[in-house]
Amino acid sequence: MKQPIIALLTDFGLSDHYVGVLKGVISNINPNATMIDITHLIEPQNIRQGAILLQEVYPYYPKGTIFVAVVDPGVGSSRDAICIKTSKGYLIGPDNGLFSFILANERSYEIRKIENDKYFRRPLSATFHARDIFAPAAAHLSKQDIFKTLGRKLKRIGVSWNTVLKWSDESLVGEIVYIDRFGNGITNISKSEFKKANKTSQRVKLKSKEVSMKEFFAEGKKDELIAVWNSSQLLEFAVPNDSAEKKYEIKVGDSVEVSTL
Amino acid sequence: MKQPIIALLTDFGLSDHYVGVLKGVISNINPNATMIDITHLIEPQNIRQGAILLQEVYPYYPKGTIFVAVVDPGVGSSRDAICIKTSKGYLIGPDNGLFSFILANERSYEIRKIENDKYFRRPLSATFHARDIFAPAAAHLSKQDIFKTLGRKLKRIGVSWNTVLKWSDESLVGEIVYIDRFGNGITNISKSEFKKANKTSQRVKLKSKEVSMKEFFAEGKKDELIAVWNSSQLLEFAVPNDSAEKKYEIKVGDSVEVSTL
Amino acid sequence: MKQPIIALLTDFGLSDHYVGVLKGVISNINPNATMIDITHLIEPQNIRQGAILLQEVYPYYPKGTIFVAVVDPGVGSSRDAICIKTSKGYLIGPDNGLFSFILANERSYEIRKIENDKYFRRPLSATFHARDIFAPAAAHLSKQDIFKTLGRKLKRIGVSWNTVLKWSDESLVGEIVYIDRFGNGITNISKSEFKKANKTSQRVKLKSKEVSMKEFFAEGKKDELIAVWNSSQLLEFAVPNDSAEKKYEIKVGDSVEVSTL
Repeated sequence: MKQPIIALLTDFGLSDHYVGVLKGVISNINPNATMIDITHLIEPQNIRQGAILLQEVYPYYPKGTIFVAVVDPGVGSSRDAICIKTSKGYLIGPDNGLFSFILANERSYEIRKIENDKYFRRPLSATFHARDIFAPAAAHLSKQDIFKTLGRKLKRIGVSWNTVLKWSDESLVGEIVYIDRFGNGITNISKSEFKKANKTSQRVKLKSKEVSMKEFFAEGKKDELIAVWNSSQLLEFAVPNDSAEKKYEIKVGDSVEVSTL
Repeated sequence: MKQPIIALLTDFGLSDHYVGVLKGVISNINPNATMIDITHLIEPQNIRQGAILLQEVYPYYPKGTIFVAVVDPGVGSSRDAICIKTSKGYLIGPDNGLFSFILANERSYEIRKIENDKYFRRPLSATFHARDIFAPAAAHLSKQDIFKTLGRKLKRIGVSWNTVLKWSDESLVGEIVYIDRFGNGITNISKSEFKKANKTSQRVKLKSKEVSMKEFFAEGKKDELIAVWNSSQLLEFAVPNDSAEKKYEIKVGDSVEVSTL
Repeated sequence: MKQPIIALLTDFGLSDHYVGVLKGVISNINPNATMIDITHLIEPQNIRQGAILLQEVYPYYPKGTIFVAVVDPGVGSSRDAICIKTSKGYLIGPDNGLFSFILANERSYEIRKIENDKYFRRPLSATFHARDIFAPAAAHLSKQDIFKTLGRKLKRIGVSWNTVLKWSDESLVGEIVYIDRFGNGITNISKSEFKKANKTSQRVKLKSKEVSMKEFFAEGKKDELIAVWNSSQLLEFAVPNDSAEKKYEIKVGDSVEVSTL
């Protein structure tokens, strides 16, 4: 039988030994594990960025996938190690907000604290729980359904960042939450909000200046700042064949308004 | 039976969610897919660089390999999505020149437009065809020979960049086409041109200055700019244990002349 | 039967074709090979950094693992290509010091020169032995136990860098050997030295200035430079949620003293 995929997202970078250690630990427990790197280049300790990227890739993975996500500035302190069973598969990592965007869209899920030291790597370090707790839990889970034996059930996650955007008159106000490699600015404004409200988006403003909406990138003119509904149905700012970050100095936190008039 | 390898080359970078999404989509269609990353660090939208690197790795992969190459500034516009069956395996991506260097060395091949929406991911976005068209086509092809059902046959690729170097008297003139991580400058002058013409390369000039030819890197002196026939039989400029890019300011486009006298 | 893992560590970077070529060559010889990337971002030609990272990941991999490590400024010169059989698995690469830290902790091992050209890729290049010698040797070894047929037995490795730290009165003196992505400074002082000597570490000095020891990162105060025994039991300098490299300008080579008083 095909084993579930273990998909990895961390801020460990690609230059150090951390990712290589993780993969060694997983292979050691389950030599048949199929590991996929989502990314290891989350900005060091930027939990929110990790949460955004995890939410972006989550829908595309097959049922049964075990996500291991580690952006963990509080490692060794009192934050819990958790495993969440969702409709798709499992989420494993620190309880610091990393999974809150995903959970906001899940109807039902079960959270367990990872505390059964039968699954820990020994000696347990105070600084590398990815190696000693998260990777072993994922590797054991990929071999056998040990979810209920990981530890006690938790009622809710400890840190939740889900923010619901609010309508103000006929407009929805959000912000740029992420700048990608191409210099495109991705916002937290989703097309689905307009569907839900039975409204049609008509005008887009970035820091109070109107921006032209297009169907796809190549439709824009050279050097023109445009807005599109991107492949995740989020509003995104771009410059065709160029970088909106460099050309228009867009940045994370810039306010965005989409109105229906 | 062993499934074919799906080898990925893109300009998506390693920091964003794009590569993680691709791999999720492929795994979802074919949970047994074997994916190999060639590189995801092609300079954003630099199609020519993508074409050079794809050509460099192509000969080393086993028969049956499915190459997915995406450097796609024209996504959403009228450029075709294509799949090419070659003597080795399959090439999948936008019809924008990415495959032209490989095809220049292939005796026979068949090109199909990818237009059968049975294989598309829905809803089809205007900005992420790698996710909605190329990855699904590759994943389906890795399970079953669906090549002929992808779409109509095309006579030729739409964009071809293959350039044939010309002899001028007793010398072959080309240029530096790529600078690698070590600061070495790789040219488009191949040793095979000299064999074909029954000639022997004797002298190398970079921007009209003579450069000494060596057998291997370690043969050069400290700080010396040398030329070698590299592992792909292309002329390459290097400085032993150092960077020719930094020491001698070589760059893409610098003219190179190899003469037989 | 499950095949052994081939774990790759190089200084080839992730932007060029070199890693993609390696993986193609291995797949071509063994289509069922399981390859894991440790890292390809060793600083170009920094053999010592490669040796440190290889030593860090080595303990975590399963028995049978074949490590291919290539940081090879002397490629094409007289340095040997070697394969070492250890208690864990195999080490393959140039004989230039890359494996010396691992071997210092191995009780017994056997070294073979890789010289049987039956396993070479032809034509053999002078500049890319990873492709023509190391990768093919690893791929063949992953299919069948051909260790003894690789070439003659060597008595010892040609270059060994293992340095034994010495006690000076009641203190052990070492240095920072590596700065990681988080700006933490990792030293060559191991907790095990204190156990061996039946002593307890008490005070840490970095460039003669005392630094406070903590159990884990989150125990330090904001902006405070702290020392911890890291997850590999090596002394490490860090600033909680920040970079010690940026805040305190720590760097490779900085002297470190740990005393028992």
